[in-house]
Amino acid sequence: MRARTIASQPHKVHVIVLEKGEEVTASLLAFARQAAIGAAQFAAIGAFSDVVLGFFDRGRKTYDEIPVREQVEVLALTGNLTEQDGSPRLHAHVVVGKRDGSAHGGDLLRATVFPTLEVVVTEVAAELRRHIDPETGIALISEVVRT
Amino acid sequence: MRARTIASQPHKVHVIVLEKGEEVTASLLAFARQAAIGAAQFAAIGAFSDVVLGFFDRGRKTYDEIPVREQVEVLALTGNLTEQDGSPRLHAHVVVGKRDGSAHGGDLLRATVFPTLEVVVTEVAAELRRHIDPETGIALISEVVRT
Amino acid sequence: MRARTIASQPHKVHVIVLEKGEEVTASLLAFARQAAIGAAQFAAIGAFSDVVLGFFDRGRKTYDEIPVREQVEVLALTGNLTEQDGSPRLHAHVVVGKRDGSAHGGDLLRATVFPTLEVVVTEVAAELRRHIDPETGIALISEVVRT
Repeated sequence: MRARTIASQPHKVHVIVLEKGEEVTASLLAFARQAAIGAAQFAAIGAFSDVVLGFFDRGRKTYDEIPVREQVEVLALTGNLTEQDGSPRLHAHVVVGKRDGSAHGGDLLRATVFPTLEVVVTEVAAELRRHIDPETGIALISEVVRT
Repeated sequence: MRARTIASQPHKVHVIVLEKGEEVTASLLAFARQAAIGAAQFAAIGAFSDVVLGFFDRGRKTYDEIPVREQVEVLALTGNLTEQDGSPRLHAHVVVGKRDGSAHGGDLLRATVFPTLEVVVTEVAAELRRHIDPETGIALISEVVRT
Repeated sequence: MRARTIASQPHKVHVIVLEKGEEVTASLLAFARQAAIGAAQFAAIGAFSDVVLGFFDRGRKTYDEIPVREQVEVLALTGNLTEQDGSPRLHAHVVVGKRDGSAHGGDLLRATVFPTLEVVVTEVAAELRRHIDPETGIALISEVVRT
């Protein structure tokens, strides 16, 4: 993983390049810890040699795993990094394209980069924090004022 | 719906969190009216309990409706808010993922949030306005200078 | 193609509107040349009357072409413009939606706009440059410092 901060006003922007074989969620969480990211959004394009998609099961309150064991293009990967109890949290959704052009997607649970993934991370207001929604068990952004 | 303005220089950025049961297009138009949005882009992730996708029919100049009556992950949702004749207009495209990992999408006509949808709205130059394209009947961004 | 620069601090933002019949990659490269774009990201929504998707074949180190000869909605189109040896380079991934709501995608190799495509181009640090990765033959962003 290589990373570079390309802007610091009005908010920091980091470009991160993940390389062959790197696991995406672990790499992004490591970056968030290292750069002390309070809250950030990111977007990425590139490709994976395999990926595990997630679909949130409302009844069981956990993610069904949908493994995709083939080379795919990363067509859209967006998400956010937040901090909860001192640790970084990642929430990302991904759309991938298979060799036949069909698109598939879900929550990004795990993915191996091949050959590269370019991620642009833009920091946002650091006071955004996550809490666990009691009904769904999902960590939601909570400290947003009601309009 | 909760909303917070997290940056005001060089352009305002709002974070909006929609909650269980809220309809997306009505909520975003209400926000646009309330915040007097002249022109903005937005992006969102989250999930829907149902959604109606649209596909623009060139012959009939209207949208075919594609109802998706099941829980889906919102994999990519991007669009813009503009003002036309004093009223806010929304144009958004969405990609959703079903339980089997297959991806589907189209124009976002209507959607019910479950459990949450996080929307980041970034205001852009307020002088962008929409007009109706005579050939397609679609409102297009028109006041862009020709290069 | 019409284009307008809507912000210049801290980085330039351009809105480009492509019109009926324009080819996307040629138009964006022409814009990059004209505006002397060093490095930029872009995102777009709109629709195509036809598109050729690409899937990178790791063995042959080239793109398989997946032609989609029908009207599709552009659900997500993101990418970047960089400069290599004095010429602009484009790398973009796209998700499109067919009339039945199914989503398809890949690298954007060629596409014809109908009726419109709205592209927001945000310039980033100009020192980002591409080089050719010897293993894959793909041009990667290389001048990012290792963390």
